[in-house]
Amino acid sequence: MELSVTLTKQPKQKPADESKLGFGKIFTDHMFVMDYDPEHGWHNAQIVPYGPLEILPACTSLHYSQSVFEGLKAYRTKTGEIRLFRPTENFKRLNNSNRRLCIPEIDEAFALEALKKLLEIDREWVPKSPGTSLYVRPFVFATEEFLGVHPSSHYKFIIILSPSGAYYASGLNPVGIYVERHYVRAVRGGTGEVKAGANYAISLKAQDEAEKEGYSQVLWLDGVEQKYIEEVGAMNVFFVIGDEIVTPALRGSILPGITRKSAIELLQHWGYQVVERPLAVDELTEAYRDGRLREAFGTGTAAVISPIGKLKIDDLVMELGGGKIGEISQKLYDNLTGIQWGELADPFGWSVKVCDV
Amino acid sequence: MELSVTLTKQPKQKPADESKLGFGKIFTDHMFVMDYDPEHGWHNAQIVPYGPLEILPACTSLHYSQSVFEGLKAYRTKTGEIRLFRPTENFKRLNNSNRRLCIPEIDEAFALEALKKLLEIDREWVPKSPGTSLYVRPFVFATEEFLGVHPSSHYKFIIILSPSGAYYASGLNPVGIYVERHYVRAVRGGTGEVKAGANYAISLKAQDEAEKEGYSQVLWLDGVEQKYIEEVGAMNVFFVIGDEIVTPALRGSILPGITRKSAIELLQHWGYQVVERPLAVDELTEAYRDGRLREAFGTGTAAVISPIGKLKIDDLVMELGGGKIGEISQKLYDNLTGIQWGELADPFGWSVKVCDV
Repeated sequence: MELSVTLTKQPKQKPADESKLGFGKIFTDHMFVMDYDPEHGWHNAQIVPYGPLEILPACTSLHYSQSVFEGLKAYRTKTGEIRLFRPTENFKRLNNSNRRLCIPEIDEAFALEALKKLLEIDREWVPKSPGTSLYVRPFVFATEEFLGVHPSSHYKFIIILSPSGAYYASGLNPVGIYVERHYVRAVRGGTGEVKAGANYAISLKAQDEAEKEGYSQVLWLDGVEQKYIEEVGAMNVFFVIGDEIVTPALRGSILPGITRKSAIELLQHWGYQVVERPLAVDELTEAYRDGRLREAFGTGTAAVISPIGKLKIDDLVMELGGGKIGEISQKLYDNLTGIQWGELADPFGWSVKVCDV
Repeated sequence: MELSVTLTKQPKQKPADESKLGFGKIFTDHMFVMDYDPEHGWHNAQIVPYGPLEILPACTSLHYSQSVFEGLKAYRTKTGEIRLFRPTENFKRLNNSNRRLCIPEIDEAFALEALKKLLEIDREWVPKSPGTSLYVRPFVFATEEFLGVHPSSHYKFIIILSPSGAYYASGLNPVGIYVERHYVRAVRGGTGEVKAGANYAISLKAQDEAEKEGYSQVLWLDGVEQKYIEEVGAMNVFFVIGDEIVTPALRGSILPGITRKSAIELLQHWGYQVVERPLAVDELTEAYRDGRLREAFGTGTAAVISPIGKLKIDDLVMELGGGKIGEISQKLYDNLTGIQWGELADPFGWSVKVCDV
């Protein structure tokens, strides 16, 4: 497919102070856009200046939320390269999400090429400071002007880029979470295992209440028995129990995180015993009381590794690691970010070069 | 609050052939729009020409589906009035949805006044032919330009209008449905009991597969045990079993339909025994085999009453009513539509006059 490029005539000022980037608020000069209609399939691939879209009020995604997305990061190495981390995994997962939401699949290889071209054009937007990166957001949404509850006939696939600050301004920082007993994020048979916008809308209320209680995220339980741990906020979760590292098995309502997968592969590579299995919340309480719950951490694109320092289960508030980062959390964080920023050897070929800058 | 009005300078051609209106594809000349920001709250209420919105690609509702909606209808009576059916119920439910999705509440009375004004302006768009109506779609969506998973700081509340054809071109028509065993629409603790766009995204795949199998909708089961009947497609559902009319009790994952509520109230007014209770799919099979399953029908704004003529549960295909409309379905349809179109007495005060035309 051809990819047309229209460069902006009004380049924006790049953020001067990289310590104030924050997350997801600043956007680069350009974006990738592609359209779908039944006659042409995916077509009209273009890189254009970042700017507003014209959307009709009856646009079906504003009503029925037929939309999916991905999130990954581009990193600037010390040697002046722009690199991506396992991007083919993201486009593969995007198509899983597309299929579940009745959205036509995209050409994964072409999407990656388009992203690389976009990154090359906006390469100066990838921040330099330690811990910073360029967040990449591919997303697809329905655009048909029709109020019937039915898969849309028209779609847009867009990639936007956002320079993002170091997630932990002063190093890795333990977070507090609690077990959510009332709200449910997803249930098997639903869309919890794909990256549908719908899952995030459903999660907002619990997240909002957690923040008001001084916790950073909630620990979701399964929707069937409300007994088994699923994921934490918008991340996957791992627990070090005795000599085992346990993460909930993917049983149809948990997002298969790419950082989750990478963490499992790294841990196994190092010889740790990683087990994917159902993990009941009662088992956690028991392990904590027996002194076998040694560490807990979340994995996700934004924070990479998020150590859990406080875990509240009903009336029991567990303090984990005594305010310090656990050994395994730290080792995973150092190695994953080391590979991502091109500072450590990459035995798995996860890091993909885009261009020099 | 003030409501500014800007009339279109290019009124569109109204549909000439009301037999070809269909549903949700044609929009009137005007729409109501109101904005929310933290500083002004809901403000900037205006009626403007229907047309495209400028939306930024990072607009949070395109990513995290923070959106809710309502659906109701305006009817043109034979005496030349425009009337609405129980509109205060819709705005009340819209605020229930807003609260669940962390969206700031709207002023229900003002929203209804704004809708009446909009209808007055576009009154000539309410079609005349029997069974036709003007579909009213209020909706709210997040507009902040921010990729964090967090309630948006900015929103738009919009009402658009769409002239709609008779749902049953040739009278009331029985539909075929089947029990959905794999996909799940919603679970208690989720958003199934409010009108979030997310619920509809989640339902698309099952709906799509049903249509491909020659069925018009699916019968959803509960997300916990996958054993109890919840609703049918995008409608509530009733079963006449022996002398009882049974509809699933609202237990946190079923949308509390306004047509459902009206049907219950009418049936009770007539002296029928209506029971809201959990209804297991096995009980339906048994009732069918015993000859006690006399009728089944869906209730919703679009079709009002939708008689179910064929119900498939796994390998058992039940034929109900021998291709004819059941007595209770017909009576409910005649009376509800009679009240809606102002042709029957309205003992409950459900029908609300908007203006003359």
